[in-house]
Amino acid sequence: MPASTQPRGVFAAALTPMNADFSVDIERLISHYRWLLDNGCDGIAVLGTTGEANSFSVEERLAVIEAVGASSLPMDKMMIGTGCCALPDTIRLTKAALAAGADNVLMLPPFYYKGVSDDGVFEVFSRVVEAVGEDRLRVYLYDFPQMTGIRFSPDLIGRFLEAFPGTIVGIKDSSGDIDNMRAILHRFPDFGVFAGTERYLLDILRDGGPGCISASTNLTAPMAAEVYANWDTDRADALQESLIQVRTAIESAPMVPGLKAMMARSSGDTDWLAMRPPLMKLDPAKAQALADALAATAFRFAEAA
Amino acid sequence: MPASTQPRGVFAAALTPMNADFSVDIERLISHYRWLLDNGCDGIAVLGTTGEANSFSVEERLAVIEAVGASSLPMDKMMIGTGCCALPDTIRLTKAALAAGADNVLMLPPFYYKGVSDDGVFEVFSRVVEAVGEDRLRVYLYDFPQMTGIRFSPDLIGRFLEAFPGTIVGIKDSSGDIDNMRAILHRFPDFGVFAGTERYLLDILRDGGPGCISASTNLTAPMAAEVYANWDTDRADALQESLIQVRTAIESAPMVPGLKAMMARSSGDTDWLAMRPPLMKLDPAKAQALADALAATAFRFAEAA
Repeated sequence: MPASTQPRGVFAAALTPMNADFSVDIERLISHYRWLLDNGCDGIAVLGTTGEANSFSVEERLAVIEAVGASSLPMDKMMIGTGCCALPDTIRLTKAALAAGADNVLMLPPFYYKGVSDDGVFEVFSRVVEAVGEDRLRVYLYDFPQMTGIRFSPDLIGRFLEAFPGTIVGIKDSSGDIDNMRAILHRFPDFGVFAGTERYLLDILRDGGPGCISASTNLTAPMAAEVYANWDTDRADALQESLIQVRTAIESAPMVPGLKAMMARSSGDTDWLAMRPPLMKLDPAKAQALADALAATAFRFAEAA
Repeated sequence: MPASTQPRGVFAAALTPMNADFSVDIERLISHYRWLLDNGCDGIAVLGTTGEANSFSVEERLAVIEAVGASSLPMDKMMIGTGCCALPDTIRLTKAALAAGADNVLMLPPFYYKGVSDDGVFEVFSRVVEAVGEDRLRVYLYDFPQMTGIRFSPDLIGRFLEAFPGTIVGIKDSSGDIDNMRAILHRFPDFGVFAGTERYLLDILRDGGPGCISASTNLTAPMAAEVYANWDTDRADALQESLIQVRTAIESAPMVPGLKAMMARSSGDTDWLAMRPPLMKLDPAKAQALADALAATAFRFAEAA
């Protein structure tokens, strides 16, 4: 696949709106995704960490994937989270993503066992690619060591590229370690290294990377889009600096509870506060503190979904 | 429920035998469980970490639970692992355990998100107990912070005991921290604190605890049973010391691959080597080193299933 057709730009690891009973609010989910695409996002990471994917059963995730596929959302802009602890679940969700019209999946490694070998991780991804068996498949490795205890080392990435060229094509590096992202990009210049935070959007673009896939772009998409559009101009550093101030403010609260609290505030709709335990909504004082921290930056709430 | 009917003694966190295609070998699983009960185990932890539970889909786990329930195994000696990342999965598996005739479940907290609050963990267990809604249910907390990143603090245990007396009744402490186990036992003397390793079997018994639930008792059950039977005699310390030497030898290899390698060696059947990635079988040199380390202790292979 030529690099030009690979996804690039600002992706949101989209929030999953829920009803009061914690079921997925599909209608609001579709309209939130659409709002993101209309307000600066080049793509959507569906059912990632921010989307609380692992708090849903496989059946619930299949229903989301099918609903997104049946909507008028552009499937070439969707990157579907499919990585589970159990191989059969990952294979099933990945097949469903392809059946729904998405080629790009974002795949966590099995995240229960710790201290597993590169051989073990390689075996998992190999078996998924082989079981799915579709040339259209494009796998992005989901590297989030703080949650998984597993790292995709550069050597392991090299093995993937050798064994599955054109199929395992990139990574979302959520480690927050820009040196690691750069090391991968420099060693594998055609590998699609997305920063897991817009904090490093400009850095990654200047190093030849495709962009970012971030939780906080649920709020900051318009500002991140400005950086992306202007990355090679002399406005870029100032735009990125403003974006970093906003990201820093958002990081002052737990990510998903904070984002959902701000969506509720922006939309005036408290349904946005629903999230599945073990995640819990922010108490009002913390939500106010987060709003105050954001107000002290250049961030302004856009008209939300 | 009077304490006398609560499970006590030596439990094995049982291995899950598989076929070459990684499906569960139900027949061998039943016969392995029976062998354990006939050779020193007072009970079986079904589908725990050692049983590779999280490498199986919910449907695969339901099939195991149903097969165990349909067998002639004594269900009052079974403790079924049911804790998943997603609440609906945990509820479904817990209901299935009760339907299969088991009252006792061993419940992991949701283990994807890290840094979650006690309130979030409390909310998860509360919702499971309420959704299952059966007086027979007995929940053992599965505390394995090395895998989950979550700790059940003494304060959280106190909240559980206040909210769900007689339902949340114990814990498997796999942290390896005997001081933590003792702190819980001393604060809550009626709470069933199982050590997660037979290394601390005698310690926990002398402190009034019920016993251990351990991976390595798949091999050491006969020796651990000797400690349990003689814990209040003057033979206890020497028996425990021998058991610790064996446990130390077993810990020289990765746990599940090492145990499966030794089962294959003991039974002469290489089918025992099948395990799901990301876990990978030991290479022959490491298996030999483990066997040599065991041979240097008092351990001798029993006639295995």
